[in-house]
Amino acid sequence: MTDIAAIRAAAARAWGIRVTPLLESPGLNRRAGRRVLVKAECLQVTGSFKARGAWAAISGLSEADRRRGILAYSSGNHAQGVAWAAAAHHAPAVIIMPSDAPSVKIEGTRGFGAEVVLYDRGRDDRDALGAGLAAERGLSLIPPFDHPDVIAGQGTVGLEIARQAAEAGVTRADVLVCCGGGGLSAGTALALEAEAPGLRVRTVEPAGFDDMARSLRAGERLANAATTGSICDAILTPRPGVLTFPLLQRLAGPGLAVDDDEALAAVAAAFRHLHVVVEPGGAVALAAALFRREALAGDAVICVASGGNVATGVFLRAIGGGEP
Amino acid sequence: MTDIAAIRAAAARAWGIRVTPLLESPGLNRRAGRRVLVKAECLQVTGSFKARGAWAAISGLSEADRRRGILAYSSGNHAQGVAWAAAAHHAPAVIIMPSDAPSVKIEGTRGFGAEVVLYDRGRDDRDALGAGLAAERGLSLIPPFDHPDVIAGQGTVGLEIARQAAEAGVTRADVLVCCGGGGLSAGTALALEAEAPGLRVRTVEPAGFDDMARSLRAGERLANAATTGSICDAILTPRPGVLTFPLLQRLAGPGLAVDDDEALAAVAAAFRHLHVVVEPGGAVALAAALFRREALAGDAVICVASGGNVATGVFLRAIGGGEP
Repeated sequence: MTDIAAIRAAAARAWGIRVTPLLESPGLNRRAGRRVLVKAECLQVTGSFKARGAWAAISGLSEADRRRGILAYSSGNHAQGVAWAAAAHHAPAVIIMPSDAPSVKIEGTRGFGAEVVLYDRGRDDRDALGAGLAAERGLSLIPPFDHPDVIAGQGTVGLEIARQAAEAGVTRADVLVCCGGGGLSAGTALALEAEAPGLRVRTVEPAGFDDMARSLRAGERLANAATTGSICDAILTPRPGVLTFPLLQRLAGPGLAVDDDEALAAVAAAFRHLHVVVEPGGAVALAAALFRREALAGDAVICVASGGNVATGVFLRAIGGGEP
Repeated sequence: MTDIAAIRAAAARAWGIRVTPLLESPGLNRRAGRRVLVKAECLQVTGSFKARGAWAAISGLSEADRRRGILAYSSGNHAQGVAWAAAAHHAPAVIIMPSDAPSVKIEGTRGFGAEVVLYDRGRDDRDALGAGLAAERGLSLIPPFDHPDVIAGQGTVGLEIARQAAEAGVTRADVLVCCGGGGLSAGTALALEAEAPGLRVRTVEPAGFDDMARSLRAGERLANAATTGSICDAILTPRPGVLTFPLLQRLAGPGLAVDDDEALAAVAAAFRHLHVVVEPGGAVALAAALFRREALAGDAVICVASGGNVATGVFLRAIGGGEP
């Protein structure tokens, strides 16, 4: 089980991971009606926080396991995080990606030296494909969120937020976290419980895909009706994780949700006020700070901008205000 | 005269200034043919390094002078830097801006609480306007580059580069700096002379506006033929500074220049690979790393991305590959 000791251990061996800045802008504060501190994980190596969990999991394997190789399934940011972390550990990596994943993410994954195996979401059995490759080559599977070391690695974001928020004079605030399966949210919540108990995680999801918010309300893991149909592709997952959900049930406040237009407006706000490039799925936390003001309390809020691997056309639409 | 002691003193009182990250991306390294470390000053408070010099100069004034107020002339980033630093010191600020300055920069300056006085470049005498206001209200003028404390403040970028480059394993490299009047270049060069003597500053300017490069070759201060006509509006200045030029003559390598299309391509590369928003004038150093490879030596280069206050239309043109 992941605990604060596991997160501290992950941080201690994360020499390849970047400490990302906690950004703030007077103009953004004015728009949000309170201080908004943005943890810019879009500036992380590989363009998202996923590098942290991948690094923690791969660095936690035995040397023999690493030499045989790494396997991951992902449509995007987890793929790039695993590909990069594997390369940094001189471990071969096979990444199984849907053939309709954003090309910027497929190219990025190949660019880190991974072998990309594409499958057709409608026709192929992804799990059988992966199981076959894993058995044949002895690969170690790194799942995207439901894995103790992955959660510990994502939790290093929380360690940094605790320190950086204190430096900025913020010790009581909601910490809004973009949420797919809940690895980043759960890891961050664990770190904050130990290091900054006045900071409380709240998940933010795309409207219509708010399985975590509904599950937290219901007290049990509920599924989404679909896993496609939002521009926030990075955080569309079928249901909360087995490991992540109980952690968030214990530690997180009520979940929030925003629609696609609000996510795109947050992408534009990050461009204008913070000069960072955020993808829609990585902007939902900031969108909640801007468009769910009444659901927040206090004079400061912290948002994780979890990734920046955005297709050019989507970014043009966000900042240009229309279709590209 | 500015020296390393003045830079260290400026750093010691710069509590409102952000330490910006030194970013690197495997994809960008591949494109440039060597390691490229990008000092992301576009993430600085107010969106450019200008906040540093303004802070250093204003924090160096007497309390009585600060209470009477601050005056600056600027078409953009210096205006915002001074407006913000003045507000942080509870000093009133008057910023004289040309009426054709980018509206994002005029609005930004007002947003920091400054009084903006617009003048017509063709019709009005800016200096007479400023002298009148300064005499009437007892304002202290903060010039954009030719001032010892401004150079010292910009030099804090060099202190950070020295430390961050060493952490990244780089101790010998050219440090490419976007250059207008030379305040950032000169301050950075002074800091590196003391803290990282294997790192050498080289100025980068827009082609056709390369007064500093030509002056360094000629051994005397030469003027530009014009100060408008490039998309790199942030770094178009009439001639090298009286204080900055001798420092760069002593410390800098040969100057470089890039054209507008190369600057826009660098804006797009920073968007894609680093997930930061850079304005064209702040991207010329990265452009030189990408498009003047043969003029550089060694397996690493450091570039300062000096600002990110870009008009949306210009950014759309850069990443979309056409007019908005």
